[in-house]
Amino acid sequence: MKKATCTAPVNIAVIKYWGKRNEELILPINSSLSVTLNQDQLKTTTSIAASRDFTEDRIWLNGKEDNINHPRLQSCLREIRRLARKRRSDAEDDSVSRILNYKVHICSVNNFPTAAGLASSAAGYACLVYTLAKLYGVEGELSEIARQGSGSACRSMYGGFVQWIMGEKEDGKDSLAQQVEAESHWPELRILILVASAEKKHVGSTAGMQTSVKTSPLLKLRAESVVPGRMEEMIESIRKKDFESFGQLTMKDSNQFHATCLDTFPPIFYLNQVSQRIIHLVHRYNAYYGQTKVAYSFDAGPNAVIFTLEPTVNEFVEVVKRCFPPESNGDPFLKGLPVDEAPLSQELLSAVECDPCPGGVRYMIVTQPGPGPVESQDVSLDLLGPDGLPTQSI
Amino acid sequence: MKKATCTAPVNIAVIKYWGKRNEELILPINSSLSVTLNQDQLKTTTSIAASRDFTEDRIWLNGKEDNINHPRLQSCLREIRRLARKRRSDAEDDSVSRILNYKVHICSVNNFPTAAGLASSAAGYACLVYTLAKLYGVEGELSEIARQGSGSACRSMYGGFVQWIMGEKEDGKDSLAQQVEAESHWPELRILILVASAEKKHVGSTAGMQTSVKTSPLLKLRAESVVPGRMEEMIESIRKKDFESFGQLTMKDSNQFHATCLDTFPPIFYLNQVSQRIIHLVHRYNAYYGQTKVAYSFDAGPNAVIFTLEPTVNEFVEVVKRCFPPESNGDPFLKGLPVDEAPLSQELLSAVECDPCPGGVRYMIVTQPGPGPVESQDVSLDLLGPDGLPTQSI
Repeated sequence: MKKATCTAPVNIAVIKYWGKRNEELILPINSSLSVTLNQDQLKTTTSIAASRDFTEDRIWLNGKEDNINHPRLQSCLREIRRLARKRRSDAEDDSVSRILNYKVHICSVNNFPTAAGLASSAAGYACLVYTLAKLYGVEGELSEIARQGSGSACRSMYGGFVQWIMGEKEDGKDSLAQQVEAESHWPELRILILVASAEKKHVGSTAGMQTSVKTSPLLKLRAESVVPGRMEEMIESIRKKDFESFGQLTMKDSNQFHATCLDTFPPIFYLNQVSQRIIHLVHRYNAYYGQTKVAYSFDAGPNAVIFTLEPTVNEFVEVVKRCFPPESNGDPFLKGLPVDEAPLSQELLSAVECDPCPGGVRYMIVTQPGPGPVESQDVSLDLLGPDGLPTQSI
Repeated sequence: MKKATCTAPVNIAVIKYWGKRNEELILPINSSLSVTLNQDQLKTTTSIAASRDFTEDRIWLNGKEDNINHPRLQSCLREIRRLARKRRSDAEDDSVSRILNYKVHICSVNNFPTAAGLASSAAGYACLVYTLAKLYGVEGELSEIARQGSGSACRSMYGGFVQWIMGEKEDGKDSLAQQVEAESHWPELRILILVASAEKKHVGSTAGMQTSVKTSPLLKLRAESVVPGRMEEMIESIRKKDFESFGQLTMKDSNQFHATCLDTFPPIFYLNQVSQRIIHLVHRYNAYYGQTKVAYSFDAGPNAVIFTLEPTVNEFVEVVKRCFPPESNGDPFLKGLPVDEAPLSQELLSAVECDPCPGGVRYMIVTQPGPGPVESQDVSLDLLGPDGLPTQSI
């Protein structure tokens, strides 16, 4: 039996991806750019074993066996095996040649709840592709394969600040992720995830973006006329570590993505009352200081992702706690990097006009940019036992 | 003393106006199209008197004296007097010549509460301009002057279905309203106004559209690339009385307007939870029937305007009452045209998935398309007494 265990990160887009020009190959209608989050707080772990004793390919997700025949999963398996065969014929590596004929067992877990509304498929497919590559000894560019699992997964193949260049080719060979800057580039940057309370289910992003591409005239105009300029501007802001510009553009692009959802027919609403309150809070907080100290971004759900710099974290967390008094449910309200208490002035409190909404934010995760996928050398993290079956179920 | 009393209607845009290319002349960035509502339900009444005994121009709005020096009010007074002088020199009419030197007293009332969130300035300025024109004996095209009071007021100068052609000239001489079809053209059309409960104040439309023009890239793209085609399509739908097409386009254009508000920075939210529930309700109701039987439109606030055809009114009103059980506050829930009770099938009720939200809709006004401004011959409607002062205060 040959095994590999790797971990991969979540990423948060600051120039949003919404809409495919090719559903099967997962080719986007515009380029996008994201920040890779640190795996100390949020990660997917995947173990894959290949053995001649296995009679079929199998997969377990978060402790439950799942359907191995999912088309996107099959795309990733097929593509990485094709690449491994190609490399094998180059290198004449017999051990790889042998295990390529074995069936695999895949076991994957997230260390964050699905309820966090973080695109777990990005970390999940990035981890799958990276782990398969380690198993088969495939090196080099892998984001093109991860993209075929879940579009945004390609951006989780690198750490720090990552762009997904949309590409132009019909076969998608030039639709790849590329690191803009490493995770060490902007050490003061912090990311807070505010998990909002929500009653209703949301339109999934795959179905949502299909409807948007079909029905929203503004989405097409955004992709063609707005995003190319914003990509350049965003890369420049990151290179210069210019938070004012980075934050403004992050908020504008999040808003524009949600605007295209509203222009979709029937319209899609991802922002709820809690999201809107957070938006207003951020604008009033920044207005109080006369500069962009915090910036929000929202994906296909009501949870807010807040970008800020280290010196602002303690105070802003306190502001959030005042506006959304935690309702104790046994779990801690703050998770992740340590936060110190911060006194709030009366001026600031009245400036943000917070009309307390208890329980509106269920909990917060404090994190920072981090590296791309890594192979684990710690056998205790292996999710598959000597029998090739999951060691634990959740 | 010479007096005139006129009434003017409210209008609801189905292709939305949002954004000026010239603030002073009120020239829009795109054409728009509206339905004029019947004055039996909603109207502004204005009486204007001119007398040599008046020492200054004065104005009373809804029973309270207001500031006559408001720039837009002064624009309308100046422009209509200029037109009257021009006509006078043509016609050598001495009586007009005389009263043009007199000061005026203006008294105006709406028969609907401001809380209804209907653009009262449109009816108000249309009524002002129309009444001044009657007083001074000015005939012909007046929408150019009404436009300078409030953009959408130009569309209240005609009955039925009215387009406001944006025009191209710098001086605005070609930015005029034009009737597309008269009020008698589509006798089955009905309009329901659902007044939503709302806690907070909203960004006013003048300030809102200024911020949108400055900050929303999508607003510019909409004005240039989307609206011209929609204007043609909407006129065609109205001419053909094609409710399917009229309703779809009405909803899409309302959504796109709100999308540009969200693309504004900081973003503007006019739709609240009640508005979103109404949107979902309309889509599910139409889905149940497999056709567009009702259509929504929202302006710069949370209230819904529902377009439908006469045979659907009773049932849809019943559906609204089920989803938003009226909370009795002394006032009737239904105002305007009579509505009969309608039984609802269990299938329909489960199809619309209404999770009742008591009091979410405060009341409804049922109305239909109606004529433009008219001069009142009924002296009992005169709002100014023989002394030239308001006969009643509210």
